[in-house]
Amino acid sequence: MSAISVFTDAPRAPLKQETRILSDFKRDAHPEKVYLAGREYLSEDGHSRMLPLVWKIKQQIGSDPTLTPEYLSALGLSEFSKRVVELALGKDSPAIVENRVLGTQTVGCTGAVRLGAELLRRWCNRTASWCGPILLPSPCDDSLAGTFEAAGFADVRSYRNWDAKSLGVSVEELCKDLAEVPEQSVVVFSCPGHYPTGAELTTDDWKLVAELMMKRRLFPFFLMSEQGLCKSLDRDAWPVRHCVSLGMEVMCAQSLCHTLGLYGEQVGHLLCVLKQNSFLLPVQSQLERLVHSLWSSPPTDGARVAATVLSNPAYLAEWQEGLRGCVERCMLNREQLREKLRLLGCPGQWDHLTNQTGLYCCTGLNGRQVEFLSRRRHVYIMPDGCLNISAINSRNIDYVAESIHLALTAL
Amino acid sequence: MSAISVFTDAPRAPLKQETRILSDFKRDAHPEKVYLAGREYLSEDGHSRMLPLVWKIKQQIGSDPTLTPEYLSALGLSEFSKRVVELALGKDSPAIVENRVLGTQTVGCTGAVRLGAELLRRWCNRTASWCGPILLPSPCDDSLAGTFEAAGFADVRSYRNWDAKSLGVSVEELCKDLAEVPEQSVVVFSCPGHYPTGAELTTDDWKLVAELMMKRRLFPFFLMSEQGLCKSLDRDAWPVRHCVSLGMEVMCAQSLCHTLGLYGEQVGHLLCVLKQNSFLLPVQSQLERLVHSLWSSPPTDGARVAATVLSNPAYLAEWQEGLRGCVERCMLNREQLREKLRLLGCPGQWDHLTNQTGLYCCTGLNGRQVEFLSRRRHVYIMPDGCLNISAINSRNIDYVAESIHLALTAL
Repeated sequence: MSAISVFTDAPRAPLKQETRILSDFKRDAHPEKVYLAGREYLSEDGHSRMLPLVWKIKQQIGSDPTLTPEYLSALGLSEFSKRVVELALGKDSPAIVENRVLGTQTVGCTGAVRLGAELLRRWCNRTASWCGPILLPSPCDDSLAGTFEAAGFADVRSYRNWDAKSLGVSVEELCKDLAEVPEQSVVVFSCPGHYPTGAELTTDDWKLVAELMMKRRLFPFFLMSEQGLCKSLDRDAWPVRHCVSLGMEVMCAQSLCHTLGLYGEQVGHLLCVLKQNSFLLPVQSQLERLVHSLWSSPPTDGARVAATVLSNPAYLAEWQEGLRGCVERCMLNREQLREKLRLLGCPGQWDHLTNQTGLYCCTGLNGRQVEFLSRRRHVYIMPDGCLNISAINSRNIDYVAESIHLALTAL
Repeated sequence: MSAISVFTDAPRAPLKQETRILSDFKRDAHPEKVYLAGREYLSEDGHSRMLPLVWKIKQQIGSDPTLTPEYLSALGLSEFSKRVVELALGKDSPAIVENRVLGTQTVGCTGAVRLGAELLRRWCNRTASWCGPILLPSPCDDSLAGTFEAAGFADVRSYRNWDAKSLGVSVEELCKDLAEVPEQSVVVFSCPGHYPTGAELTTDDWKLVAELMMKRRLFPFFLMSEQGLCKSLDRDAWPVRHCVSLGMEVMCAQSLCHTLGLYGEQVGHLLCVLKQNSFLLPVQSQLERLVHSLWSSPPTDGARVAATVLSNPAYLAEWQEGLRGCVERCMLNREQLREKLRLLGCPGQWDHLTNQTGLYCCTGLNGRQVEFLSRRRHVYIMPDGCLNISAINSRNIDYVAESIHLALTAL
């Protein structure tokens, strides 16, 4: 028996923040504990749910005897891809008409980021020794840098996407960071619905940013996992469409997990808008090759459900109606939380809560206050002072508001 | 508008063999065309099917209102992992008792290979600058080398796993190749049911190979996607269990896609047997980190179905009975094809067809003969002369046998 292990030198890797917070929460035995650090959209009852329409379609597909079990091709279900591309770019997008858009079904949003990163790393303008850096928004998901690093990008930096003073994004700071980075860098935008802050640029801000990106030949890589959960399907996709309208090449990692309630199905997609149609077949062949080295083919069921919803006008309308309900509920939660904090006489301005959009929300609380919330009040939010606004409901809102008030006044 | 594209230099990547053959087949308009180059287990009716039990359980899980949609953790469904580990190693495995086995649910078998490769690449014995090479069986899936290369292994070689003279594996040639490779190399075994040849080592051969592996400190990486489709669940896992019984560290990429008929669900798993329990938590934390950079969390539905089947003794027995039916049908196809070739007076010995096991079968036909089959007879098999034996049925067997006979006599 060989004496040594190949794993002798493996150190313990740090836990992902979400994992750590969830495990702290699970250990907490307090009866009033509240968990606001999750990722899923929760309904008023505190559970993640599929819309009734999605549930019905999932049942139909699951019991359809004509759908035999087989592997999808590497690029996934083409009907899904077609519909999701139209969802992002709009049916009449010139890029679609000119046939220079590539869509690949992926394993969730992370799978799309990884696939896109590997494609960029291998085939971006090699004659110009293009090799990054990657610019990530700060704060962002703590695994995002690792995904780009694992794909081979050694130089991962960040740009300021949250200004603690103004409690929002400062477009001046953002542009300053973009102006300083080397030309042809990749800039990642988590938009719409920035995770974890929920803070957004205005349309005018976006115009400025896009112009600067063009001038400096920066490459936009969008993470779009909340399309339809911020304002509306079309308005949420505006920044991507604007960049495409300027003739820019764009990548966009899409996820329909939130909007369809299909988390376990990992319904993801990578969209690439290319400069011209002649790049389509080479880039597609490279994507296929990369997929064969990652997961061979993506899972089927979620893509079938999504394609069914998106390709039927009646279903599409019903789905949009359901999404509108989620958007309104999140906004109501934001307004109610702001009002409760005001009524409690909580120090500071709270308008930023309602200026943000989507599932996530940055309160502006600092690290000590966040720790106070979990230790003293058993309320678990993210370390950056952010929380999932859909996790607030009529049963916990008073306790949460009171806890935030105490964190700001008792410390 | 910036004039150049980041993709200017992307060349067209070669198509995967399977993709090319399938697209040739689809273009072929001949009414008697036969496709034997697929990967899925096909029933007598020519379609892939779930066992009735699996179908029933999938329906139950799909309509269970208590299962709310949510992301799994990075390592996946723990009940699934527990059962799949037991399936591979046996419930009483000392490695399980000593708590030195790690299981991670993955996106299919390829996802498991990629994850295992990334783990090996990053954390194998770094003080000894362990860095490969990787030895793959020849022939094997034409994407396998790319998966290891993408994970960072620059030196990917192969060992002889098919001997055209004896129409099987020559253990002497295999051992010769293993004796020449640097110590601490990783050796990949596609077993049981080698894709694409179906050729197997005997138990005595395996004992020799394992001894040599031990002596030369080679690391075994098993690809086990047909456990239960070759002989039986227990007998098929014997090589893995033998290596574990010798105290070796082992990785095993498992897939239950074939045996459950859940192809679209991508039910995969990576099993790591470690030298000692003290490596468990560090290696687990590294696996979590790698998963967060690949797909964040695996898909849910297939794992739930698999866990339900494997944890209920009555279901397990029914599933095994169904698998036995598949094994018998494949063996019957092998025997019938051999007999038909004999009756046609086809030159050569055909006993290798029945010596092989599992879904795939190497006929021994050469490249020209394979081309004859597709061009002149519209029968599509893999370039190495291999085919999926389950794709043969009572409607096509005479035509296939006659075509093989012609390929050997008319050229």
